[in-house]
Amino acid sequence: MPDNRPIANGERVLADLNALRAIGAYKTGVHKPTLSEPHRNSLAWLVEKLPEAGLTGTIDGIGNILGTSARTGPKLLAGSHLESQNYAGWLDGPLGVIYALEAARVINSDASLRGAVEVAAWCDEEGHFGHFLGSRSYVGGVSEADIDAARDRTSGQSMREALRDAGLAGRARIEAEPGRHIGYLEAHIEQGDALETSGLAIGVVTSIVGIWQYRINFVGEQNHAGTTRMASRKDAGLALAKFCVAIDARFPAVAGPRTVWTTGRITLDPGAPSIIPGGAEMLFQIRDDDPAVIARLEDLLRTMIDEANASGPCQAALERLRTGVPAKMHPPFQEAIEAASKAFASGRSVHMPSGAGHDAQVLATIMPAAMLFVPSIGGISHHWTENTADADIVTGAQVFVDACRRILAG
Amino acid sequence: MPDNRPIANGERVLADLNALRAIGAYKTGVHKPTLSEPHRNSLAWLVEKLPEAGLTGTIDGIGNILGTSARTGPKLLAGSHLESQNYAGWLDGPLGVIYALEAARVINSDASLRGAVEVAAWCDEEGHFGHFLGSRSYVGGVSEADIDAARDRTSGQSMREALRDAGLAGRARIEAEPGRHIGYLEAHIEQGDALETSGLAIGVVTSIVGIWQYRINFVGEQNHAGTTRMASRKDAGLALAKFCVAIDARFPAVAGPRTVWTTGRITLDPGAPSIIPGGAEMLFQIRDDDPAVIARLEDLLRTMIDEANASGPCQAALERLRTGVPAKMHPPFQEAIEAASKAFASGRSVHMPSGAGHDAQVLATIMPAAMLFVPSIGGISHHWTENTADADIVTGAQVFVDACRRILAG
Repeated sequence: MPDNRPIANGERVLADLNALRAIGAYKTGVHKPTLSEPHRNSLAWLVEKLPEAGLTGTIDGIGNILGTSARTGPKLLAGSHLESQNYAGWLDGPLGVIYALEAARVINSDASLRGAVEVAAWCDEEGHFGHFLGSRSYVGGVSEADIDAARDRTSGQSMREALRDAGLAGRARIEAEPGRHIGYLEAHIEQGDALETSGLAIGVVTSIVGIWQYRINFVGEQNHAGTTRMASRKDAGLALAKFCVAIDARFPAVAGPRTVWTTGRITLDPGAPSIIPGGAEMLFQIRDDDPAVIARLEDLLRTMIDEANASGPCQAALERLRTGVPAKMHPPFQEAIEAASKAFASGRSVHMPSGAGHDAQVLATIMPAAMLFVPSIGGISHHWTENTADADIVTGAQVFVDACRRILAG
Repeated sequence: MPDNRPIANGERVLADLNALRAIGAYKTGVHKPTLSEPHRNSLAWLVEKLPEAGLTGTIDGIGNILGTSARTGPKLLAGSHLESQNYAGWLDGPLGVIYALEAARVINSDASLRGAVEVAAWCDEEGHFGHFLGSRSYVGGVSEADIDAARDRTSGQSMREALRDAGLAGRARIEAEPGRHIGYLEAHIEQGDALETSGLAIGVVTSIVGIWQYRINFVGEQNHAGTTRMASRKDAGLALAKFCVAIDARFPAVAGPRTVWTTGRITLDPGAPSIIPGGAEMLFQIRDDDPAVIARLEDLLRTMIDEANASGPCQAALERLRTGVPAKMHPPFQEAIEAASKAFASGRSVHMPSGAGHDAQVLATIMPAAMLFVPSIGGISHHWTENTADADIVTGAQVFVDACRRILAG
């Protein structure tokens, strides 16, 4: 490889990630809900760092940061997010922001290269207040009324109040400038164990799966748990449990090889130990990158609801809360990541879909976008024990910087 | 029947029940949590009514009322409770108190009869703060430390604070006076549909079932709902659902004819739509009046836990939270109720166990006790639609008053 090829400074990357980890530290991870004090301090930290990369930026009216460059030539947007899930990991988000910062530091100061890397930190990728509110605001998909309605899912605080507390009330929101960027690149921890179990260093993301979310509701008859005979009960909780077990039995035959489905929440009404539940509700989601697979599974779900209603004694209903179109990643950018992986990671890479949602799927609606993954130890994420080996973090940074260079070079 | 036999005044009984229904009315039922303002007003209402029956009483230091008579001769204690479950029925509790008041009004003023009926209203039978706290205090089973520790299960308010708000802080608690009463009689709505479906008017309670309560806990592995493949999941929620369905399949072969079992509450941890539950918990209870049946079912439950642990992938654990010894009702009192039913309800009565817990099971630990049931429309209870036909209420009152007369007559 030529001596003058710009590469990442691994120590600097690790030092920056650890500086962000110290803001809102929780055990070995962090607790940085969107617009909480540690999240705001992390945003302020990034704004102060941007000039090191020849960028200027501020926090906008929805908590996004966009660091812009005055350099001429093509501009590549890169970034991720700085808030965390509650009591969660230190790399989910910050890794992609610091890789972007490092790419900007390395590339934007190199007189031998054309163009620049610009850095973004999207607010609320983790969905404390909504659903990709920051990146959706940037692509023009969030109204003022959406922000009025947004509330923190844990504390119940309104987003307006949180923005006011952060000193951001009344600030303009930055929207994408048509034609400014040739595309968007984002790095993230894998959040699964595919890379680790195969001994690989880089995942080249081919698509980001769509998420279809449902509420399944059962109505029975609330009654006294001591005086109501078993034969005359209409136990909504039992009907729900049977439905969960039926999904487990019947979905595999219809699902694709990478489909996943999850019942994340169950609520019984009234939920008292001596009362037969008259109501029961489950939140259910399906993820796949093939809408045809989702359509088959949704058909099966509707058939199962009909069967449950026909057999009784409770009534079941299916409500679709959210649909997600899978986002295809830009093939030339995938090739750039793979080439960078050959140069800096001995080619230890694999093409894979992302089972998790990411801001890249929102950016992909207005510009070419791509993602790379680094390994997650034990596949653990959304938990404070989430981690990635330092060596893998450094390798990923080198691949990311080189991929940015290749994309800018066309 | 002889003309001079004392009988209940049905209109007075219905008027009193409706007066109590108007205090804390909710739709056609009431909302009177223990020591709430409507409950306190109901207690004050009763204290003012007691002199009509030749009784004097006050509210004691735990919210119990005991109306005592100065008449000589045998004394029969009768009563029930005045608080309700949240947003529940108008008769669950007040029916038994007003029947007792009516029996005292009729009998205590009759110079041809010996002895008296004394009236009790036990605080917190519905368990907002504990577990039969009022009647257990009367029989000497509640310490000051128990009261210190008691908190409202809905609001979290301490019982000490609630007692202070009610002006009861520092008042003495009334305890049973050994030898004062020949026994205890309580009337209640059936809370099931056995009487209604058989066209009967009176249930002669043979025993009050014991309640065994369990916490069943499942530990899996919390992980990301998008990135964790189905094959490598340890979903605690699914493990719990399978266990509920297995109980439904296997309990009937081992249970007795009247055994009931209920999963009243299910909680997934963390309970978020995009996270595979790492923990799941269910509150499970079994009721029967035969401890041998309970022992068999508990054995089955432990076998099923062992099987779940052997098959994996989650770990299950069983914790017994509460055991309940069934209370046998006093046979001579049962005969008195049946004789009264022959005289005033054309013999439309049946012997039956009580699937619900009642203060009578606490009183039965220190004196002979018995209960009678009146029909519940549709078997509904612990819900504001709970109801009993006026004609059944009046018939029940006549049987109750006559049963008291027969018991006092020996």
